[in-house]
Amino acid sequence: MTAAAFAASLGLLAVSHRRCGRLASRLQSLDRTARRVPSSFAPRASSSSSSSSGARVPAPVAPPCLDERSSLPSKVKVALCQLPVGEDKRLNIANARAAIEDAAKDGAALVVLPEMWNCPYSNDSFAVYAETIGPAPGRWTGGGTHTNGAGTGKGVTNDDDDDDDEDEEAESVAMLSEVAAKLKVVLVGGSIPERCATTGALYNTCCVFDSDGTLLGKHRKTHLFDIDIPGEITFKESDTLRPGTELTVVDTAVGRVGVGICFDIRFPELAMACANRGAAIMVYPGAFNTVTGPIHWELLQRARAVDNQMFVLTCSPARVPGAAYQAWGHSTAVGPWAEIIGTTDEKPGRVTCELDMEQVRIRRRNMPLEKQRRGDVYQLRDVGAAT
Amino acid sequence: MTAAAFAASLGLLAVSHRRCGRLASRLQSLDRTARRVPSSFAPRASSSSSSSSGARVPAPVAPPCLDERSSLPSKVKVALCQLPVGEDKRLNIANARAAIEDAAKDGAALVVLPEMWNCPYSNDSFAVYAETIGPAPGRWTGGGTHTNGAGTGKGVTNDDDDDDDEDEEAESVAMLSEVAAKLKVVLVGGSIPERCATTGALYNTCCVFDSDGTLLGKHRKTHLFDIDIPGEITFKESDTLRPGTELTVVDTAVGRVGVGICFDIRFPELAMACANRGAAIMVYPGAFNTVTGPIHWELLQRARAVDNQMFVLTCSPARVPGAAYQAWGHSTAVGPWAEIIGTTDEKPGRVTCELDMEQVRIRRRNMPLEKQRRGDVYQLRDVGAAT
Repeated sequence: MTAAAFAASLGLLAVSHRRCGRLASRLQSLDRTARRVPSSFAPRASSSSSSSSGARVPAPVAPPCLDERSSLPSKVKVALCQLPVGEDKRLNIANARAAIEDAAKDGAALVVLPEMWNCPYSNDSFAVYAETIGPAPGRWTGGGTHTNGAGTGKGVTNDDDDDDDEDEEAESVAMLSEVAAKLKVVLVGGSIPERCATTGALYNTCCVFDSDGTLLGKHRKTHLFDIDIPGEITFKESDTLRPGTELTVVDTAVGRVGVGICFDIRFPELAMACANRGAAIMVYPGAFNTVTGPIHWELLQRARAVDNQMFVLTCSPARVPGAAYQAWGHSTAVGPWAEIIGTTDEKPGRVTCELDMEQVRIRRRNMPLEKQRRGDVYQLRDVGAAT
Repeated sequence: MTAAAFAASLGLLAVSHRRCGRLASRLQSLDRTARRVPSSFAPRASSSSSSSSGARVPAPVAPPCLDERSSLPSKVKVALCQLPVGEDKRLNIANARAAIEDAAKDGAALVVLPEMWNCPYSNDSFAVYAETIGPAPGRWTGGGTHTNGAGTGKGVTNDDDDDDDEDEEAESVAMLSEVAAKLKVVLVGGSIPERCATTGALYNTCCVFDSDGTLLGKHRKTHLFDIDIPGEITFKESDTLRPGTELTVVDTAVGRVGVGICFDIRFPELAMACANRGAAIMVYPGAFNTVTGPIHWELLQRARAVDNQMFVLTCSPARVPGAAYQAWGHSTAVGPWAEIIGTTDEKPGRVTCELDMEQVRIRRRNMPLEKQRRGDVYQLRDVGAAT
């Protein structure tokens, strides 16, 4: 129950006694605050009504507020670029550019890059390879120089404390914006280490560009990779990185897209909240490893897909022999029935496949899970949407 | 944010103006209501604190309140009895009794039966095979006669509107209680159609008995199986059944167990809330079908297990040639790393395997997901625990 509903159920907002004017006025303000949530962003099953059984059941919020723009394509060709990543940043950038160009030549409308594609995956490297990224929405004009603030503001959400200006060469991000605009592709630009211009803090950040090069949003990895399986794998991203504090859902030319990064996929709430905000495609750049990859990587993608009846796309770096961190690879596209649409092994390569967006509607119509969620038993609250 | 926190953040509860006495008093009452949540049942990550990054992050609730009774066994032998189910109720009951006896003879401490094990899975059958089940906790004394209310009340929760007395022969449930006590096994008694003595409404209900025959709790399927995949499968449980309105988590002689039934497994929130209440084992009697079974049955079990770092046990009816409803079978036990511990095909049989309960602690220690949940970004609210 929202605060407003809670208050209203006690009749608090009906109080009109003059002597209580100021307090009543503050309660009304509280009510207005709660109502400010756009209905399309309302947490799923936050209200309730009486069913024929007399039990309080949630008001249906079904299907989730899919992006219904008539201009959206019904078929989306996607390319997941499984890039090898080394120590030479300029070579990493050149490789990424070439992969995006190849994908666009083959007709991809949505191109995805891996987690940490410009930088070896290592706590020692993040600060060295980091770039300062301006606030989204923004726009780079290409050619290695860029200006901010000229974007169209189409991002549904983006990140938190950004009043940053780029004060250093952001060559990776500049390339992404330039190429997206030139090739007219939507680009989920994997992730790179980001340095906050204001605080100097480092983040693992994914930039999403629309097909005109606009930076629609940037996702800062919300759940850092802190794991200690003795004798198998130990890594602690939080030694060097800070976690993001917001969900990221953006409206692109191919539809509404939610973004998570790698370890974010282990938290069902993140994908559920993005689906609830209307995302039909969830994209996770991610560098799982050779311990958790074989048993969990595909499982988690298929689980997020079937639970939310949405597409899930992942893009991993390729495995580089001799590298300190051995990525699992296996970039994959999963459909809303948990079916594998395209996948690969651990080597450098590209997964190209087509998403039939109608499948989301069909699966949700055949099995309307949203209508059956039980707001009287549990409630997932999307904090950012409600405040 | 809870209603109380919301109100408090606006300073509403600090208002002490005399003229606003009545209104302030109602607000204080609202605050007390919100505080009534037992701490061990508090929704995960519902509070927050400031991190070193200055971001609001959730207070750790990790690991979830595992049942730490020193008397609990560290290894639990389980048996999943994949029974064939036909139209002869007495034969179904005799088969179930024999299967439980065989499992106990082989050393099982926890025995699980399938969904709808006393009744063909059909809307036409539910009313015919239904039994009235007394409120939990209760105790049957065996021999087909039973009394209520003499239980030990160990259930952490059970169902909702029960002031029912059994007014008809509850032979299935009586058998379960008798056999559990005689063989000293914890028994998750699959499910049977239940008729509410007060309203006449029908439910799909799972009874859980402790090893002394005590009815610890009963779970009424919370998400009914309503599906329409044209040309493949159409079923609408809500034509005849009502949904339950509560989570079910019970303390048994083998540890704290959460229960869902079949379609309940499609809703991550249910298992997450049970894990949050301290369950280390989630049991789903379930009769998936030959359309969704092959692609989703194992996937959903492994997803619930790995997301919550808990054991997941499922028990299906065997497939019966010629029956109107073709069950998928494949009863399975999954460990907290998503590993398959035991499984079978579609034929009548039994899965017997051992759960090493220490694995739950090890997996949660190595990868402390609970510490990383982000109450400042999303919150799962367990309504029943909070009211």
